[in-house]
Amino acid sequence: MRLGVCYYPEHWPQHMWPRDAKRMAELGLSRVRIGEFAWSRIEPEPGRFDWDWLDQAIDKLHEAGLGIILGTPTATPPKWLVDRMPDMIALDAQGRPRGFGSRRHYCFSHDGYREEAARITRAVADRYGRHKGVVGWQTDNEYGCHDTVQSFSTAARDAFRSWLAERYGSIDALNEAWGNVFWSMEARSFEEIELPNLTVTEANPAHWLAFRRFSSDQVVRFNRVQVDILRALSPGRDIMHNAMGFYTGYDHHDLAADLDVLGWDSYPLGFLEMFRFSDEEKLAFARSGHPDIAAFHHDLYRGCAAGRGAEGRWSVLEQQPGPVNWARHNPAPLPGMVRLWTLEALAHGAELVSYFRWRQFPKAQEQMHAGLLRPDDASAPAFAEVEQVATELDAWAEPGPGVKHAAIVFSYPAEWMTQIQPQGEGCSALWAAFRSYEALRRQGLNVDILAPDAPLDGYRLIVVPCLPIVPDDLADRLASSASQVIIGPRSGSRDADFAIPEGLPPGPLADLVGGRVVLSETLRPGLFHNGAGWNVTRWLERLEGDAEAELVCDDGTIACWRNGRVRYCAAWPEGQLIQTIVGRAAADAGLPVDLLPEGRRRRTCERLTFEFEYLAGGVSVSATA
Amino acid sequence: MRLGVCYYPEHWPQHMWPRDAKRMAELGLSRVRIGEFAWSRIEPEPGRFDWDWLDQAIDKLHEAGLGIILGTPTATPPKWLVDRMPDMIALDAQGRPRGFGSRRHYCFSHDGYREEAARITRAVADRYGRHKGVVGWQTDNEYGCHDTVQSFSTAARDAFRSWLAERYGSIDALNEAWGNVFWSMEARSFEEIELPNLTVTEANPAHWLAFRRFSSDQVVRFNRVQVDILRALSPGRDIMHNAMGFYTGYDHHDLAADLDVLGWDSYPLGFLEMFRFSDEEKLAFARSGHPDIAAFHHDLYRGCAAGRGAEGRWSVLEQQPGPVNWARHNPAPLPGMVRLWTLEALAHGAELVSYFRWRQFPKAQEQMHAGLLRPDDASAPAFAEVEQVATELDAWAEPGPGVKHAAIVFSYPAEWMTQIQPQGEGCSALWAAFRSYEALRRQGLNVDILAPDAPLDGYRLIVVPCLPIVPDDLADRLASSASQVIIGPRSGSRDADFAIPEGLPPGPLADLVGGRVVLSETLRPGLFHNGAGWNVTRWLERLEGDAEAELVCDDGTIACWRNGRVRYCAAWPEGQLIQTIVGRAAADAGLPVDLLPEGRRRRTCERLTFEFEYLAGGVSVSATA
Amino acid sequence: MRLGVCYYPEHWPQHMWPRDAKRMAELGLSRVRIGEFAWSRIEPEPGRFDWDWLDQAIDKLHEAGLGIILGTPTATPPKWLVDRMPDMIALDAQGRPRGFGSRRHYCFSHDGYREEAARITRAVADRYGRHKGVVGWQTDNEYGCHDTVQSFSTAARDAFRSWLAERYGSIDALNEAWGNVFWSMEARSFEEIELPNLTVTEANPAHWLAFRRFSSDQVVRFNRVQVDILRALSPGRDIMHNAMGFYTGYDHHDLAADLDVLGWDSYPLGFLEMFRFSDEEKLAFARSGHPDIAAFHHDLYRGCAAGRGAEGRWSVLEQQPGPVNWARHNPAPLPGMVRLWTLEALAHGAELVSYFRWRQFPKAQEQMHAGLLRPDDASAPAFAEVEQVATELDAWAEPGPGVKHAAIVFSYPAEWMTQIQPQGEGCSALWAAFRSYEALRRQGLNVDILAPDAPLDGYRLIVVPCLPIVPDDLADRLASSASQVIIGPRSGSRDADFAIPEGLPPGPLADLVGGRVVLSETLRPGLFHNGAGWNVTRWLERLEGDAEAELVCDDGTIACWRNGRVRYCAAWPEGQLIQTIVGRAAADAGLPVDLLPEGRRRRTCERLTFEFEYLAGGVSVSATA
Repeated sequence: MRLGVCYYPEHWPQHMWPRDAKRMAELGLSRVRIGEFAWSRIEPEPGRFDWDWLDQAIDKLHEAGLGIILGTPTATPPKWLVDRMPDMIALDAQGRPRGFGSRRHYCFSHDGYREEAARITRAVADRYGRHKGVVGWQTDNEYGCHDTVQSFSTAARDAFRSWLAERYGSIDALNEAWGNVFWSMEARSFEEIELPNLTVTEANPAHWLAFRRFSSDQVVRFNRVQVDILRALSPGRDIMHNAMGFYTGYDHHDLAADLDVLGWDSYPLGFLEMFRFSDEEKLAFARSGHPDIAAFHHDLYRGCAAGRGAEGRWSVLEQQPGPVNWARHNPAPLPGMVRLWTLEALAHGAELVSYFRWRQFPKAQEQMHAGLLRPDDASAPAFAEVEQVATELDAWAEPGPGVKHAAIVFSYPAEWMTQIQPQGEGCSALWAAFRSYEALRRQGLNVDILAPDAPLDGYRLIVVPCLPIVPDDLADRLASSASQVIIGPRSGSRDADFAIPEGLPPGPLADLVGGRVVLSETLRPGLFHNGAGWNVTRWLERLEGDAEAELVCDDGTIACWRNGRVRYCAAWPEGQLIQTIVGRAAADAGLPVDLLPEGRRRRTCERLTFEFEYLAGGVSVSATA
Repeated sequence: MRLGVCYYPEHWPQHMWPRDAKRMAELGLSRVRIGEFAWSRIEPEPGRFDWDWLDQAIDKLHEAGLGIILGTPTATPPKWLVDRMPDMIALDAQGRPRGFGSRRHYCFSHDGYREEAARITRAVADRYGRHKGVVGWQTDNEYGCHDTVQSFSTAARDAFRSWLAERYGSIDALNEAWGNVFWSMEARSFEEIELPNLTVTEANPAHWLAFRRFSSDQVVRFNRVQVDILRALSPGRDIMHNAMGFYTGYDHHDLAADLDVLGWDSYPLGFLEMFRFSDEEKLAFARSGHPDIAAFHHDLYRGCAAGRGAEGRWSVLEQQPGPVNWARHNPAPLPGMVRLWTLEALAHGAELVSYFRWRQFPKAQEQMHAGLLRPDDASAPAFAEVEQVATELDAWAEPGPGVKHAAIVFSYPAEWMTQIQPQGEGCSALWAAFRSYEALRRQGLNVDILAPDAPLDGYRLIVVPCLPIVPDDLADRLASSASQVIIGPRSGSRDADFAIPEGLPPGPLADLVGGRVVLSETLRPGLFHNGAGWNVTRWLERLEGDAEAELVCDDGTIACWRNGRVRYCAAWPEGQLIQTIVGRAAADAGLPVDLLPEGRRRRTCERLTFEFEYLAGGVSVSATA
Repeated sequence: MRLGVCYYPEHWPQHMWPRDAKRMAELGLSRVRIGEFAWSRIEPEPGRFDWDWLDQAIDKLHEAGLGIILGTPTATPPKWLVDRMPDMIALDAQGRPRGFGSRRHYCFSHDGYREEAARITRAVADRYGRHKGVVGWQTDNEYGCHDTVQSFSTAARDAFRSWLAERYGSIDALNEAWGNVFWSMEARSFEEIELPNLTVTEANPAHWLAFRRFSSDQVVRFNRVQVDILRALSPGRDIMHNAMGFYTGYDHHDLAADLDVLGWDSYPLGFLEMFRFSDEEKLAFARSGHPDIAAFHHDLYRGCAAGRGAEGRWSVLEQQPGPVNWARHNPAPLPGMVRLWTLEALAHGAELVSYFRWRQFPKAQEQMHAGLLRPDDASAPAFAEVEQVATELDAWAEPGPGVKHAAIVFSYPAEWMTQIQPQGEGCSALWAAFRSYEALRRQGLNVDILAPDAPLDGYRLIVVPCLPIVPDDLADRLASSASQVIIGPRSGSRDADFAIPEGLPPGPLADLVGGRVVLSETLRPGLFHNGAGWNVTRWLERLEGDAEAELVCDDGTIACWRNGRVRYCAAWPEGQLIQTIVGRAAADAGLPVDLLPEGRRRRTCERLTFEFEYLAGGVSVSATA
């Protein structure tokens, strides 16, 4: 695994660049990511390009031995461009234009902007595509950041109508698929379909699901324009994009299919503070991050990058090195955490960990975001940890790929559907996957997170935490597998257009599960059914069929059903309940079950085994037994 | 009492209709409500009507012996109509158009839409008004649902100005009545009056009260257009509308005056979750509903339907049969609850309980809303309970009218005023009425909820929980009554235009109460004055006068005053305080006081007495002693 | 000190005015504030003035011996004016017009409205400027109330661009100062700078800071137009404005520089309820107000009025006399509080305490706001307390100026910066100042609150709780002082344009503090480091340098550093931590340290010493020892 850093030469006087490059190399870094926000410096006036500074920067970095990952600057179109085509601005769900003055203000559906993005990509790739120092590309930056995938502009509306026409063929087919007869929502032509925002009460969930799919497709299409240009003008270089944490605004399986390497930006402390962890977890792990945040995304994005076959190529393109500026509260990591996070990435197979950023910039929005260096150029606490880990990486053998234990099946549309129709507050497919992952990791197991169409071979335990749309092919492969299987609630509960399947949930999984879901209900926090060391929370389904009750509450409520090697979790998969089910299934699968103490996690690779102590910031590494 | 069901033939293939009709009849149902969202099927293109399917549906249902309640489809104008008159769309308080894509997107003040609503009503009534199977009509559906009574459109503004001109005659009268001299808000003509939304800080409460009255009048006027058409074209049929729970957006006393039967839609579990109950109550009654939710509305709407005289005719037009889809959390009812809710309606004098809906529709917004049948046509849990209660209804005698015990006086403008000017968070006239009702019901008493102009004869105890505007006539009738009377805070505290009366609150009630309110204050939660088993919360008034202190806190604060047979509750009427006052007054009134255990309620009718066990889902019925 | 009252003759029939005036005088009042909302009565039609009523009112009040403070009515432009220039309306941060119907609907940057405001000011000053009864003027009313300083209108945008051009000279200078290269935010001309609202994610903090400064300057400029007219047309009269509590929307140091007397409006109970006090404080002081609310503002506004030199002239222009109408909950003050609050103002050197209002107005927005008289003209509870305090004031000696103990340095831009970039929720410079003030007052000390450019002579203890921008001059004066100094977090952490200073924080204070801040982090509630009777919360900085650790947590975290007579509080200055540091520094300074019991406060003036018992509503006054 390589180490790298994110660097913004345009923020610093030119005389500092050679020394910066030298220090990077001395620290043990071999990659530097640059350029992704520099449009106003590359093209300060319409059509007038200033390449000189970037030539210099790239040359200096290259001379120091660093491989450059160059970003296309399309996340930050400059003011002159916005003024030339004001309707390139996205509209938010309230119908307000998302103004210039930060970043990501463009609408993915605006043809004019997509052409401009192609133009600047072509210009940069023309100039540097075959430069020896350039080893990779990053398209744009964090698609969707600040909730920017969906736009409610006229451009988006028109593109949505075309997309619908292509998907459904006829308006009658759309009306039928969505059930538009309900509430007289029937359209007579695709021109009568509006965007689903600002309706009086919720729009048709099928309408929203289509809009989510469309919006995701617009991102993929926008990205592909750049990928095609870069492939043509910069042959042999890896094309990447940097995904985010707990973010599902577009389908990462689709995007990754066009990339060579899927990157992601890992901010364990910021994510802990801003996402759906309990107050207890936020306090306990304030300085380390919850021990599954980074690993979950490593495994998720490796799966996205893998697509239908080979081990996926993935990287950490931004790694938190100290306090950040954007969470509600921004504590400093425990000593040792930057090293620990780096080694967790190593253990999961990253190609690169790139720290964000080289030196803290004393101005503008991220002035409180730590770097490896302080604004005064002295080293920040992370610097020494990077130094140590760089030495260790040199000294150690490659860990080898992770041993196959368990797989989780997750899809982005699953999360969209639970967002569109939670039915009970807090019921999210993404979090069902996260809590199932946590339960598996607590048992010391390796986990791969797979798309519904990914191969399942070699896993002794397969968990489908919450997958409303189950493709027939997946159902068939689960049926013909010999693995232990855990199916969670809502799985198979919808057809491709958000309708309940004719034979009731779990649809194509009914035979596998040995029953049908005849009633679903949701429970407010505090309302639960007690079991033996676990309980039923949030969601509860009643099954009819041949499956046997395996976990039964004191009041007779059945939390988990069993049909041979298949278990059906009828309540929300979280806490001790999913821990208990996972423990039983893993034991039945003959997996090496070992409930780890709080804060400890293990990753078993072919050659090395890692034990991470999140509460202490420590890592122990040993040869795999 | 009859049983019925809500049915949407347009959702199902035509071949299912005869079998559905037959099963309804076999189940013991005699009424079926249809058609209220079917505009796009009745008139798929402007001016082109498709009656064939509806002819078939009505005939099949009629042939099975069912009486049909037909809805006018005006809650869901189709897209082609919105595109023809885009300004028929309501604007919300933020000034945003409330877009097409769900329902209730029209502005009540738009003349063009009102004409269209009349046109479609006339068309449907022309076709089916004299059909033998049609026994009743429902106008529109749930006026006000999703906060749709108020619109801030140009149409609304213009209509409001006309309404004001009619009410006040001259702009000087309006300025004087509202006190517009305050903050230089004086207008020189009605054309200078704007809608009260989007002001810098709160608008004049008199301005808001006028707008609330106007908005309510627009609903009544809109409804009356349909009622007049239906009366003319469908003689002898009952005209109804379906009101909602805890909803006060328009004056139901006014609306009911134009109807034959006031219906309402009873969803005890959804209401518990979504309205102002404590977390403790939400947990304790999650599967049964708070034991007063349904009964309160039965008694409220019976009072609305009664108007100035006879026992009011009312029905439950939609009855929750299982989990719904629209609350934050949606649990399943306890076994027995559907029967219990049905019998509670019987005990309060409903003409009809109509379950919503016949069969769960697997598509669109309400796909997670249970029906009597599952989407796969098998029976859902409620089916058997309906079967049982249908048999019981056949077997039992009619219970007879409720024995007169206590009356609560409530008006819709009272609630508008406490919403406009809460003065202390959580102080609402509606909830003062609900908590007073609960206290009376806990004592095993029957309660009628009356408009201020309804007769008070025959009640031994009359409670006025919070009635800012007290008509002189009501004051006179209370004065000349011999009943025990409880007056709650803010009663008599305002004139008709929201000004404090000259002689201070309680205005026309001063003699009755034996004092005047010289100071009002509100208390944050946690700030209270302790009494003996009760305490003073939220609101506290100081009285001067001849009344005697009856309930005095440890610190000398007086919670309740007494002036002969009249008590004045000077603190917010809730919890143990109103329980204590009600207990004393009921005892003084010679009423059969009997504090029931938690979850138990009683309803004493002329011939039958019902005991409802909400926590167990049980009902016992006996002959009235 | 004088007593006065706010009076609205236009609310009452003319025949009541002479009697009202007589009662005021008999009560012991000598000032009456009138006219500030009366535009629609003064100029009922464009250009048609009605002076008669106001002539009468002023004459009657004058005849009773009262000195009149006359308000310009510019806070409430009438409807006819808004209709003539609709774009005078401010736009809120969401881009919505702030409609007519309450008050403060104008945009400070609208040239047309500023001319209208000058015209009406000139008209009123022409008529009454030399009237013998008129002793003072109030410009407008509560600038900024209801969040009205910032407007996002076209007028504001254009004026902002001009303001920026003046401040920065060239667009390159602005780009450089703000660091606009970050995220390609560089502008090519001032015409490319937009307002900072409605950006996709947060705008550049330098952009916001400039907009806050600009918005403040627009208020000062608007006010100065009136001041210039009044000075010219009404020589010898005091010109004032009434500031608010916990309000920092404009720079009060700047505004006060143009005034003779700075007034403020003191509502201790409303402020307690609506501002950032803990629930425990809100309950404990619900009826008295937190004991430092009024005093903090007295000392703050005295400092604002003082400017660079003399003891500042200040007044309480509105004093809460009972329950108000505008807080979430509105309790009544404890008996004695109106007297106590009056004497607290006396002890801090007020020239005037003016009760708001004479008689409760039974109509419009403030009908629930108590006065000295009830709406029925009888005396409200405050009346007798005013009577008592008026007598006492006559009997007692003038207390003399406060003895100099400690000073707090506070600036408005400091608070803007912590609002723009809190980094950790709840970290506010204003509240750092308030909690430091509380700690000093708990020790029985007098406190002056000073602008950064105010003289520091005579203070034995100087506290700089949180001052991101430290002028070099202040750093020099602190360095050359012999006083004990406490510097709080973030002080000296930014340059004038929101950039981190080259040598790191605390910038110009580095030598004084004996160290540099190399890392800042913020801690969620519940995350803290325990010390001995205090702990570290919210904010934590690491220092490198020669200072010694003075307060060290159990885990080694350093909460407070000491460098000779200077202490650096490295954690958030609140609670027991700042109490401990203040106690040590005050002892070192030789100040009379005396930790007072909860609810007691002391003010030591030259001749009189006051002890206030907030929890009991009592005051004891004695000769200063």
